[in-house]
Amino acid sequence: MSKITYDSALVIGMGLIGSSIARALKEKQLSKKIFAIDKDSEVINISKNLNLVDVIESDLNKYNQQFDIIFICTPLSSYRDIFKQLNSYVNETTLVTDVGSTKVSVIEDFKESINNKKILFVPAHPIAGLEKSGPEFGFAKLFENRYCILTPTETQSEITRSVSDIWESFGMNIEIMEPKRHDRVLAMTSHIPQLIAYSVVGTATELESQMKDEVIKYSAAGFRDFTRLAGSDPVMWRDVYEKNKEAVLEMLGRFSEDLLTYQKAIRNNDLKYLEEKFIKSKEIRKIIEEIGQAGTFDPTEKN
Amino acid sequence: MSKITYDSALVIGMGLIGSSIARALKEKQLSKKIFAIDKDSEVINISKNLNLVDVIESDLNKYNQQFDIIFICTPLSSYRDIFKQLNSYVNETTLVTDVGSTKVSVIEDFKESINNKKILFVPAHPIAGLEKSGPEFGFAKLFENRYCILTPTETQSEITRSVSDIWESFGMNIEIMEPKRHDRVLAMTSHIPQLIAYSVVGTATELESQMKDEVIKYSAAGFRDFTRLAGSDPVMWRDVYEKNKEAVLEMLGRFSEDLLTYQKAIRNNDLKYLEEKFIKSKEIRKIIEEIGQAGTFDPTEKN
Repeated sequence: MSKITYDSALVIGMGLIGSSIARALKEKQLSKKIFAIDKDSEVINISKNLNLVDVIESDLNKYNQQFDIIFICTPLSSYRDIFKQLNSYVNETTLVTDVGSTKVSVIEDFKESINNKKILFVPAHPIAGLEKSGPEFGFAKLFENRYCILTPTETQSEITRSVSDIWESFGMNIEIMEPKRHDRVLAMTSHIPQLIAYSVVGTATELESQMKDEVIKYSAAGFRDFTRLAGSDPVMWRDVYEKNKEAVLEMLGRFSEDLLTYQKAIRNNDLKYLEEKFIKSKEIRKIIEEIGQAGTFDPTEKN
Repeated sequence: MSKITYDSALVIGMGLIGSSIARALKEKQLSKKIFAIDKDSEVINISKNLNLVDVIESDLNKYNQQFDIIFICTPLSSYRDIFKQLNSYVNETTLVTDVGSTKVSVIEDFKESINNKKILFVPAHPIAGLEKSGPEFGFAKLFENRYCILTPTETQSEITRSVSDIWESFGMNIEIMEPKRHDRVLAMTSHIPQLIAYSVVGTATELESQMKDEVIKYSAAGFRDFTRLAGSDPVMWRDVYEKNKEAVLEMLGRFSEDLLTYQKAIRNNDLKYLEEKFIKSKEIRKIIEEIGQAGTFDPTEKN
């Protein structure tokens, strides 16, 4: 990997991920100047107070210059408008990458909105995040040792290389994947767990009041892990389910079928079925621990 | 709370919880001698090697003495046999408590098996655990700052007090609850999240091989939290679903209905519904953070 330094980088959307990119660019001195855009005046204020970027504006048209590299870090529903704006704004060769959790829809939006050959787009999905949203929670190390999946299409390999290099500079491990495959894998590893977490927590909110208080009080018994996921940004996730509808519905169907077999086994006292299934699931956990993906949890934590 | 010291304590079942109780009894000098029983010869060996107790045997009948207090720390399916054995063995006043995740079934088993008035039983559920099983993973601090729910029935209050005191000595916060209510609350906070975690992980195991490898590789995206739960002891959980069947099926029904509304909203592109639900779930997370039940997670963790 060659050390790259850009003259100017633009981060569109200064939420958790965008602000972490801004911090990483600064800390690792990857761009001489760092610019940002966010529509939310509070996000602009926080970004200014924390001195996260050199300049932050509410809209691209407030700028009066070109950028070497642009990071799109906004919810998926905003991509089409952003691409259209870039299509007319960009007049010098510009690398563009993004952080969207789905990739097929992003590529479709790109193809529909952009015919400007100066825009060199390499779709990316850095698999890093927190259950918090907002620029105040970002940090440069968010990306370290995490995977970044690139789904280049019809792009020259040297362009992919340049975008790959910058993600690698943040400390990420780069993987190349077909966009459709990316969306199916992530449906299973991310979109379905997230939806189920929202749903379990939602079920709890509809219990009668005293029961609900007790569910919250005794949440440490397992429920808490679901609420952690459910703390994530609602708009970002809403968009994911719209944009990855097909893969999500497929995986959700599989999950629901499987859950029904558990339900039936419980109803019929089929303990053997349950035990066998639980043992199989435990084995997957073992593999995840073995490959070092288990994450760190503090067993002595205060609650 | 008065400082109690017993002459002899017996731990039946030296898994994660039982061995943690043995360690806590020792560290806090709550019993002069600590005895244990486990049917598993490997567990006996580990307990001996780690010097966890004074004596460990494979069966109650290998002992030749009475005990002041007995902790039952075995899967729920073993309770009836253990109660029957205690019923004929005990001939001096003995406090008995347990750690079972369901309480209605435990009380039923007790009433069916025990008519020995020397046995003073106070059912307990210390809400503490790890996704690991086995005596080697136990530690005395496992119980600190966690809740312990007692569900006493027809017991004199001084007996409940004595059992309450010993759990409190481990650092736990004691709550008294109706057994039936306990089982419903725990169905929602613990048994359903656990079942869903098993089910999601199970769904992933049935994907085609390459897909499965990728799901494991990118598990940090959310799936990992589910595998953590799925790492727990299969036999213990199998028994929970048998013993808390009614409450689990009720809560599972509620969850499945809710999940279907999400599925329908995704299919119909009803983004407003999704966003509203997600916002509501996020609020529950906020409350859990505010009451200090959020747990600690290391955002800078290596993966």
